[in-house]
Amino acid sequence: MSTAISPLAPKTYPKMPAIEGVRMATAEAGIKYKGRTDLLVMVFDPDTSVAGVFTRSLCPSAPVDFCRQNLPAGKARVLVVNSGNANAFTGQKGRAATSATGKAAAKAAACSEGDVFLASTGVIGEPLDAGIFSHLLEGLVKEAQPDKWAEAACAIMTTDTYHKIATVTAKLGDVDVTINGIAKGAGMIAPDMATMLSFIATDAPIAAPVLQALLAKGTGKTFNAVTVDSDTSTSDTLLLFATGAAAKRGAPVISDVKDPRLSSFKRALDKILKSLALQVVRDGEGARKQIEIRVEGAKSSRSAKRVALSIANSPLVKTAVAGEDANWGRVVMAVGKAGEPADRDRLSIWFGDHRLAHEGERDPSYSEEAISAYMTRDEIVIRADLGIGRGKATVWTCDLTKEYVAINGDYRS
Amino acid sequence: MSTAISPLAPKTYPKMPAIEGVRMATAEAGIKYKGRTDLLVMVFDPDTSVAGVFTRSLCPSAPVDFCRQNLPAGKARVLVVNSGNANAFTGQKGRAATSATGKAAAKAAACSEGDVFLASTGVIGEPLDAGIFSHLLEGLVKEAQPDKWAEAACAIMTTDTYHKIATVTAKLGDVDVTINGIAKGAGMIAPDMATMLSFIATDAPIAAPVLQALLAKGTGKTFNAVTVDSDTSTSDTLLLFATGAAAKRGAPVISDVKDPRLSSFKRALDKILKSLALQVVRDGEGARKQIEIRVEGAKSSRSAKRVALSIANSPLVKTAVAGEDANWGRVVMAVGKAGEPADRDRLSIWFGDHRLAHEGERDPSYSEEAISAYMTRDEIVIRADLGIGRGKATVWTCDLTKEYVAINGDYRS
Repeated sequence: MSTAISPLAPKTYPKMPAIEGVRMATAEAGIKYKGRTDLLVMVFDPDTSVAGVFTRSLCPSAPVDFCRQNLPAGKARVLVVNSGNANAFTGQKGRAATSATGKAAAKAAACSEGDVFLASTGVIGEPLDAGIFSHLLEGLVKEAQPDKWAEAACAIMTTDTYHKIATVTAKLGDVDVTINGIAKGAGMIAPDMATMLSFIATDAPIAAPVLQALLAKGTGKTFNAVTVDSDTSTSDTLLLFATGAAAKRGAPVISDVKDPRLSSFKRALDKILKSLALQVVRDGEGARKQIEIRVEGAKSSRSAKRVALSIANSPLVKTAVAGEDANWGRVVMAVGKAGEPADRDRLSIWFGDHRLAHEGERDPSYSEEAISAYMTRDEIVIRADLGIGRGKATVWTCDLTKEYVAINGDYRS
Repeated sequence: MSTAISPLAPKTYPKMPAIEGVRMATAEAGIKYKGRTDLLVMVFDPDTSVAGVFTRSLCPSAPVDFCRQNLPAGKARVLVVNSGNANAFTGQKGRAATSATGKAAAKAAACSEGDVFLASTGVIGEPLDAGIFSHLLEGLVKEAQPDKWAEAACAIMTTDTYHKIATVTAKLGDVDVTINGIAKGAGMIAPDMATMLSFIATDAPIAAPVLQALLAKGTGKTFNAVTVDSDTSTSDTLLLFATGAAAKRGAPVISDVKDPRLSSFKRALDKILKSLALQVVRDGEGARKQIEIRVEGAKSSRSAKRVALSIANSPLVKTAVAGEDANWGRVVMAVGKAGEPADRDRLSIWFGDHRLAHEGERDPSYSEEAISAYMTRDEIVIRADLGIGRGKATVWTCDLTKEYVAINGDYRS
């Protein structure tokens, strides 16, 4: 497994403010990794509402099943996350593990089992022994502190080469509210979902159904618009918790998704979702370059997104970018194979501001020298105008390098 | 570009018999490559019928458009193939090149332009100057010989590390007929089509509509069941020519696809299609192992094939095999992401004869030692039983190695 930090890692990290009503603690439970934390407990004050979106895999992990069961009630008191074992495809044993963890967490946090949320990430198919860590939960709940966001982000990492955190503020009414989030990748990243795990919390007083609507909408252009390798995890989980503590400072309680006072919060939520999703892409296994794919002029937005994902998931496009080769012919190929309405003779393709192809032919005016210089950058934008409609979409991916193969050819052992 | 021959290359090549009515010649036209042949002319006697299947890309190459135009008449006299330039996404210039080549080929073979078939393979988007080679066609038609199958297969290679040929015989009535074929890969190989180029010829007297029906049916379980990297070429072309020369030796002329005398020919055609398709997979860029994916117990055959392709196209499954890691959890993931009916708790997975997972859990009885030994083989069979129906399908792919990334990161330059 590689330990070199991605060259696309953030140069600086934000200072994470506390979110009133949220406390965290981590531990070295020794589930798989040695000498690092692998267990996170996040504790929420009473009346915290929760929203979530999950993998669309038809073989989801046991914790995903567990969360889906508790989500409709919309209340959360404690989140338990372990890394090193995904508790996926573990059958009856997997359900036994989530049940035991759920019970232990409920006891530790003095709440009902319906207020517990769980996530696991790591190897698939190995039974997870909840006994390794369930006895730690009570102590962790007690010692949990509000200022542990970076520690929390570190404890949930697997092949991530850096921890992923983000914070934004928004106005709710006249009151400042905060949104903090953490995420982890790094392989098996594809819609839908695009992160394996991400947890976001805010002190805004927003009812669970509103939170759910905002989260579902926000993921479409963020977490569900990133792909590392087209492989969808069995465990992908994105949870958003709202403690409501800002109400004490005068923030209005929001119970209607159409409430106009939500506009600043919506923007801020979308921003943090995008930040975390891009941090995941930039830590894609073996990634050396971030690739933004913009498709426009498609028949519809849905069609544009399919074409964009076809480009983003093409191994030939991704290896070309790794090789710093502006191989726009492979973009044509990926447009063609998407199966969406397209017309070769109307297609134009740009790398950055350099138009390489126009209306079905190589653009005779482009400069090989300029484009070669552009391709050495670590953020590449590929734009394709299909020229047949007004649909557009943007997705993000990373290049496909030898390092990806090295990391994934020797993960389980 | 790599020049090491695939370890999966054939140990021996068959001796290719002549097909009466088919002659070939090759030349070094210098289109892109130096010091090797890059132009093939295949000449057919009058009354040769032809069938073809092509890429489903919506951005097909100019030669694909050209062939599609001539195919309905069902007659062929000459095939011209060049390597080094795909004449794809070349717009008006591309059409001018196919038109010029078509005219020159028709003149050289003294036939109508409607009897000409063309194929090009290589870089996309570079204009192809037909003037480089069109003047050679007349000489090539004159010097064409029946015993040039291996030479023909060599002239159409691009990143292939070995040439691909196959021959089979069949009975048509009481008469022996022969089918010969050549193919080239090696990247951008995915359904549908799965080869970039393949040309097959027989002396059997079979009418074009029958030939077309046999070819379309035969590709489903062969060329359209292999994938190297999920990328579909703009140029994929499979043509089947029948000279009918065996009629002189008493072979019955077949004009009905339901003719029972076709059974031996059908089997032989399927066999040569499978042989060529697997040769393409085994020369997948960077391939070190052939992977056969068998999915059974699916809701339908169509569903089984989708699941099989989801497994075959998963970078995580392919890198695991490259790393000789029986990572069946990634097979679960790929089943889950296929979006087809599946039930985690009924899923069983084998690598070779080793059952690793059964009814939603790791099979406790499998031997890590035995499976590790199995994974060192160069032909790996992954079998998944979904346990919910009777649909089944088999597809073939290869592993994903660092060499694939190296080859494709530096192809255009």
